[in-house]
Amino acid sequence: MSKKPRLTKRHRIAIDAMGGDHAPTEVVLGALDAAASYPIDLLLVGREPEVSDEVIRHAGTQPSNIEIVHAEEVVEMGDHPLTPLRAKRDSSIRIASKLVAEGRASAFVSAGNTGATWTSAKRDLKMIAGVQRPALAAIVPSLTPQGFTVILDVGANVEAKPAHLREFAVMGHFYAQMVFSLPEPRIGLMSVGEEEGKGNEVTKESFSVLKETGLNFIGNAEGRDIYNGNVDVMVCDGFVGNVVLKASEALGDMIKKNLSTELKANPLRALGAILANSAFSGLKRRLDYSEYGGAPLLGVNGGCIVCHGSSNAKAIRNAIRVAAEYTESNVTSKIRESISALHREEEKEGLVPAGE
Amino acid sequence: MSKKPRLTKRHRIAIDAMGGDHAPTEVVLGALDAAASYPIDLLLVGREPEVSDEVIRHAGTQPSNIEIVHAEEVVEMGDHPLTPLRAKRDSSIRIASKLVAEGRASAFVSAGNTGATWTSAKRDLKMIAGVQRPALAAIVPSLTPQGFTVILDVGANVEAKPAHLREFAVMGHFYAQMVFSLPEPRIGLMSVGEEEGKGNEVTKESFSVLKETGLNFIGNAEGRDIYNGNVDVMVCDGFVGNVVLKASEALGDMIKKNLSTELKANPLRALGAILANSAFSGLKRRLDYSEYGGAPLLGVNGGCIVCHGSSNAKAIRNAIRVAAEYTESNVTSKIRESISALHREEEKEGLVPAGE
Repeated sequence: MSKKPRLTKRHRIAIDAMGGDHAPTEVVLGALDAAASYPIDLLLVGREPEVSDEVIRHAGTQPSNIEIVHAEEVVEMGDHPLTPLRAKRDSSIRIASKLVAEGRASAFVSAGNTGATWTSAKRDLKMIAGVQRPALAAIVPSLTPQGFTVILDVGANVEAKPAHLREFAVMGHFYAQMVFSLPEPRIGLMSVGEEEGKGNEVTKESFSVLKETGLNFIGNAEGRDIYNGNVDVMVCDGFVGNVVLKASEALGDMIKKNLSTELKANPLRALGAILANSAFSGLKRRLDYSEYGGAPLLGVNGGCIVCHGSSNAKAIRNAIRVAAEYTESNVTSKIRESISALHREEEKEGLVPAGE
Repeated sequence: MSKKPRLTKRHRIAIDAMGGDHAPTEVVLGALDAAASYPIDLLLVGREPEVSDEVIRHAGTQPSNIEIVHAEEVVEMGDHPLTPLRAKRDSSIRIASKLVAEGRASAFVSAGNTGATWTSAKRDLKMIAGVQRPALAAIVPSLTPQGFTVILDVGANVEAKPAHLREFAVMGHFYAQMVFSLPEPRIGLMSVGEEEGKGNEVTKESFSVLKETGLNFIGNAEGRDIYNGNVDVMVCDGFVGNVVLKASEALGDMIKKNLSTELKANPLRALGAILANSAFSGLKRRLDYSEYGGAPLLGVNGGCIVCHGSSNAKAIRNAIRVAAEYTESNVTSKIRESISALHREEEKEGLVPAGE
């Protein structure tokens, strides 16, 4: 069920060819697929001979809409997030990020070191005027009509003040509009009870701040609302978002493992499993968020799509499509306008000095 | 797979007969089962005529080890947590709690309003000397050898300082020792990365505090470690614990719902599902934590076992067994001794003034 891209213009996307557990092979395969499927030009960033070999090996010849940009260094998964700013300035992540800063690409995609990707993006693309903190927005399967929910932040910030959560809500709104084609996504504030008075100091204060945004804010939500279909966008700090995302991944893995053990326990069950096999594929498809191809770092000037380290070619292809859609739907300018409108509102009310 | 109780002495347990979605029927059924299975005396607290009718209806006659204690009022699920302290002082929750405070029972069990249960316990049983914050400890299925992991706090506190997380670690240690029969449970600190420097201000500071406890502290853990078998006890603040617990419940429900839809999609799958049916029961059993019967509120003087509102008779029976084991294994005194040893240590080092 490959999604139809909503692309009417041609976009140029940079890809970190060396990032991820299966790089460069799966990244190059995904890029070749994307280059053949969408109206895009791709800049494949990495060690030129290696990347070129992969391209030729799989495609026979280098497609005309793919250009290889050499990068001498590679940021490893275990490297410190600041590595591309301090030590490996010629790494594929950093060069991909710079291509966006220089206007040679509108977005970049990496399945490499997440921290290194967002420090590069923050340094090179800079924050959108008025935005204080970027946020990483993940998409998880849920019981919403569209089958998925956006959750942010999932790890770009370990702490967040009400003003930051407000930014996350605004950014999540535009991202959900884009990926789900929803005019007014329902936004929930992650807390430990639905009533306004529930939660910790930050969520209590954030509740009234979010009510003033003009967004479709439905109030406090609970952990269960990520999955039960009650919200389209769940707003939380990066600590909570990261914990709940990783816990969910591991819980899914555990259930899969347990079910598989149980189904192999005797021949009758095994036969049943064979007959019902397509149901398990159906379940897998329902829970498969690789269609949404990675999590954007929202709040920077330009597209930065962070993919899971274990991304395969399909996930990379979809991340490239999302990067192009992100550009085409002007998420960056929408965030910029909306955030500055909020700040103007506050200045008018004398809540903050002009220019803050 | 009913667990064998580790009980050599006779214990007296109070039960809130009116608490829970299926009260009093399921509570009474669970109590009758427990009274017949374990060396215990039970005090069933609730509206006497109603509770008595239920007992007679199911057992024919009132067992000699069950006594009914009348309570005029009932705290509803939607009532404010302070209701049993202010408005409904004669509620079944409050009277059950007072029976423990007066020494007429060693522990009480309630599937009613969670907040009301723990405010009653805090008021009547009082905190263990030296403990600043109580913690609610939940048990979730996991890939550990024992098949389960303790996570605390899951909602008694929305914020926690390093000193509180240290208390949670100590209390979780003794609780896991008891329920899993593990001499040295592995304790993890919930964070967003495994390295010592990862996390927010609280987790960073807590890391060194936990290293000094003498417990089997394995360091920072991530959301995935709740389920992947890496830790026996996960320590976090009640906000994070509550979010992750509720999200996990909802994710499990969603997967179940999706799988069931897929299995009914065509006759072949349906046939397969029938053949493999026992595998699904096996999976359900693996994920069934009702054997552990509810979450204790750790840190108060005496046993207080909070059950899920949807508890059935089996969950209530198991919660009663856990309440008796909790008494027999002296979790309260172990926590008291361990916490005061930690405080003595700090006084010796001049970290805190004597008596703090």
